[in-house]
Amino acid sequence: MYIDYRLKQPILYSYFRSSCSWRVRIALALKGIEYEYRPVNLIKAGGEQHSENFKNLNPLEKVPALVINGHTLTQSLAIINYLDEEYPQNKLLPVDPLMKAQVNIVANAIACDIQPIQNLVVLQYVGDEKKAEWGKYWITKGFTGLEKLLSTTAGKYCVGDSVTVADLCLVPQVYNANRFKVDMAEFPLISRINQALCQLEAFQISHPDNQPDSPQH
Amino acid sequence: MYIDYRLKQPILYSYFRSSCSWRVRIALALKGIEYEYRPVNLIKAGGEQHSENFKNLNPLEKVPALVINGHTLTQSLAIINYLDEEYPQNKLLPVDPLMKAQVNIVANAIACDIQPIQNLVVLQYVGDEKKAEWGKYWITKGFTGLEKLLSTTAGKYCVGDSVTVADLCLVPQVYNANRFKVDMAEFPLISRINQALCQLEAFQISHPDNQPDSPQH
Repeated sequence: MYIDYRLKQPILYSYFRSSCSWRVRIALALKGIEYEYRPVNLIKAGGEQHSENFKNLNPLEKVPALVINGHTLTQSLAIINYLDEEYPQNKLLPVDPLMKAQVNIVANAIACDIQPIQNLVVLQYVGDEKKAEWGKYWITKGFTGLEKLLSTTAGKYCVGDSVTVADLCLVPQVYNANRFKVDMAEFPLISRINQALCQLEAFQISHPDNQPDSPQH
Repeated sequence: MYIDYRLKQPILYSYFRSSCSWRVRIALALKGIEYEYRPVNLIKAGGEQHSENFKNLNPLEKVPALVINGHTLTQSLAIINYLDEEYPQNKLLPVDPLMKAQVNIVANAIACDIQPIQNLVVLQYVGDEKKAEWGKYWITKGFTGLEKLLSTTAGKYCVGDSVTVADLCLVPQVYNANRFKVDMAEFPLISRINQALCQLEAFQISHPDNQPDSPQH
């Protein structure tokens, strides 16, 4: 039997406070893609991402995972790239190779250089006593370079005046910065861009506080 | 005066042992792009990447940086994506969105989840006493998931039988694993793919030992 997977609603495996999950939630919102939300509690009972069921879905034992068009995709930037090609409304990556490189540079400066070092698994390994200092140190260090980088690329948003994948990485990273009590007054440009983005509906409905698994919900 | 930047040789700022620099060196070799190599010593005198001159080139104070077609690009994956669009010979990313997503998932599993945690700056912060254990722990953990992921995507190489950006991330990461004495016998699939890739000329000429700034050179 032929199944038209396009007719099936995608399923997002997500944790409300996971910044990588939030990136994908923003993309889905901007693209206007309806989806089923399935919470994966990264904390409870050692973490549901390590369960046998979830391991079968994502051997990397991480959220987000998106089941879409008959396939399971993982890694937030890979998912967002896929969505941007298959659902071209509200493009998140410019077509011009140089502009695209600029967007990818900013996105990767966050997704490869800042977020991974203050990720949950690293913080758990560093330990309760040191994790607040650790998170604050690495985000502050990363934002110091990012602030300078953005001064060469920013318009209204991270790169020019359109929302790109760089912005999808920025807002969840600033949210983490605030959790770790980073002094955002040191980063006026990041703060200004973050504020502009937070006014957009897609960033609001995808916010951790507005997810089904949030205690705030 | 009109300058045809295509006629100017690109300049790669690189450190022989930087795994992110190595990724780009492989791409340049596979594409057959001639370039000038400018070493940036990440260790000497606190690190040349923090010099005023280099900061002006890359505010993130990291290698690699590639000056090409009149622009300075940073972040290895952003550079490789750009090269793949502008120099389409030996494509490193499939055109099909789903295949491309699979390649990006593997590449990001290394570039966002493994390499950043055992990066030089993190190791320096962790300190001389603990850095060997730290590096071995995170690479072993990352490779455990990666081995399972590759069992769903691999052919001769990481994804199918063509060399992709995933392979450009794999070989430098295995090199780091060996430096940190990771037991590679635990990872037969990663080892098999790595061996196949290491037979290719582009991976050999880009190897740390064969760079002008290597003590082996």
